[in-house]
Amino acid sequence: MDETFIYICDFIGTLAFAISGIRLASAKHFDLFGAYVVGVTTAIGGGTMRDLMLGHPPFWMTNPFYLICSGIALVWVIVFRKLLVRQNNTWFLFDTIGLALFTVTGMEKTLQAGFPFWTAIIMGTMTGAGGGVIRDVLINEVPLIFRKEIYAMSCVLGGIAYWLGMHFDAPAEVSAIACAVVVIAMRLLAVHFKLKLPVLKGEGE
Amino acid sequence: MDETFIYICDFIGTLAFAISGIRLASAKHFDLFGAYVVGVTTAIGGGTMRDLMLGHPPFWMTNPFYLICSGIALVWVIVFRKLLVRQNNTWFLFDTIGLALFTVTGMEKTLQAGFPFWTAIIMGTMTGAGGGVIRDVLINEVPLIFRKEIYAMSCVLGGIAYWLGMHFDAPAEVSAIACAVVVIAMRLLAVHFKLKLPVLKGEGE
Amino acid sequence: MDETFIYICDFIGTLAFAISGIRLASAKHFDLFGAYVVGVTTAIGGGTMRDLMLGHPPFWMTNPFYLICSGIALVWVIVFRKLLVRQNNTWFLFDTIGLALFTVTGMEKTLQAGFPFWTAIIMGTMTGAGGGVIRDVLINEVPLIFRKEIYAMSCVLGGIAYWLGMHFDAPAEVSAIACAVVVIAMRLLAVHFKLKLPVLKGEGE
Repeated sequence: MDETFIYICDFIGTLAFAISGIRLASAKHFDLFGAYVVGVTTAIGGGTMRDLMLGHPPFWMTNPFYLICSGIALVWVIVFRKLLVRQNNTWFLFDTIGLALFTVTGMEKTLQAGFPFWTAIIMGTMTGAGGGVIRDVLINEVPLIFRKEIYAMSCVLGGIAYWLGMHFDAPAEVSAIACAVVVIAMRLLAVHFKLKLPVLKGEGE
Repeated sequence: MDETFIYICDFIGTLAFAISGIRLASAKHFDLFGAYVVGVTTAIGGGTMRDLMLGHPPFWMTNPFYLICSGIALVWVIVFRKLLVRQNNTWFLFDTIGLALFTVTGMEKTLQAGFPFWTAIIMGTMTGAGGGVIRDVLINEVPLIFRKEIYAMSCVLGGIAYWLGMHFDAPAEVSAIACAVVVIAMRLLAVHFKLKLPVLKGEGE
Repeated sequence: MDETFIYICDFIGTLAFAISGIRLASAKHFDLFGAYVVGVTTAIGGGTMRDLMLGHPPFWMTNPFYLICSGIALVWVIVFRKLLVRQNNTWFLFDTIGLALFTVTGMEKTLQAGFPFWTAIIMGTMTGAGGGVIRDVLINEVPLIFRKEIYAMSCVLGGIAYWLGMHFDAPAEVSAIACAVVVIAMRLLAVHFKLKLPVLKGEGE
């Protein structure tokens, strides 16, 4: 894929992830430092877990891009505080693009490291959805993705699309695009039709 | 030890750990994905922390066995929801077998990596009891093992039994069995006699 | 710097960190094991995250010093329970010394591993302040350092002092001392003048 295009997607995805963390931190009256840490963790937490499990140094330790993005996100939230709700559709879209890109990146890195496909699907899902789980742990809430509309499952389905592409000898690029398209489509459908996974009933119910 | 026997213990231990996570997740109305993640994390979380600290790739990344076990656990909880309470004694037993096996595995891997004995005891305890701590963080509760009957302390005592075995030049197998027996015996005694560690008093009390 | 002096600072810093964890655990009625785990995690949690990200085995796995310190801290809290409040100034001072030393250690290890300066500042801050975040996650509270007086920001400022020292070709020792002095001074000023970072306003406010 075109490098500049990926770079732009990475930027808006990181921005959207960081902003989601900073907004939740501000609702809990965190200070600037706390809000920045929660924002940065949302943006890079999933990829950090992936890199540790793959035995790599976390990707952000050699590239200040992600920390700078998160700084821009912090300024954005401060400046546009009262307009954020009106920008919700944009941020949802950016978040979705980030989710798709991070899933693809996570899968590619895992396959390059020689792990099997099902491990790559887990790592892709972790790269996309893991940061949000750490975010929710830090703000002391039950992780949203365990209860809300389909989120992480779009990564899993995107991962399966990637696997199908490889299985039928499609070029890596085509598989990656198929993966991203499935993630984005699933997310849009999930939010539009309020698709949720079935909830497990408690034992006494 | 007999390989098939260990394999069976690993299966029922993983099953019991995953089921404990899934039951707690269902009490919090997690969806299917959330419940599966909590179940899998309970089963593999301790060993994952151990492997990261030992510098290995997490054990489940090359063997789908543990993810499949956790899937079976999810189906079990859905199908036998109303019977789970009646099965409590069985799951307690399976959990205890898992705790013993995971402690032994954690110790063996740490000693093989060349670390001292006291590190192996910590890693054995982490392998056995660490997954439950991550489970409780994910469901946003104070970790049970910090307040309930003796749980992690049985791993520590089992680890000391292992160390005594090695100290008196017993074969590795004998030490491992001694460790497992101590863990299981301590757990049974703890639950039967409701043994708890002393609770720390607050400063104003 | 004088080795014995660093050793003493390491001891009182570890002690103070562990005691802060054990006191919070006792307020939540954790048992002895739980309190010890929270204490030890507060003391070594930041350095453990740093070592995992740098690709080293965690520092405490080959040196029982830190686990013993945390054991002493546990005994201290039990014995001097009713006097701890009166000792608050001492523990604050010891905690501050620990924060300074851990920040310096974190920076040095990261620079030695060949990472850039801004990564070292993050790792220094994580070494100093990360254990407290894990502590608060384990006791199921929102991390204190995201809302209280300036704490982690003193590490960041100390890190910048270190960087300035290196930038102007000061010997490593001078940079390290400058870093420690800035951390300690900032902490003292922050607590004396109740300096806080601005709090982010929620969106509806």
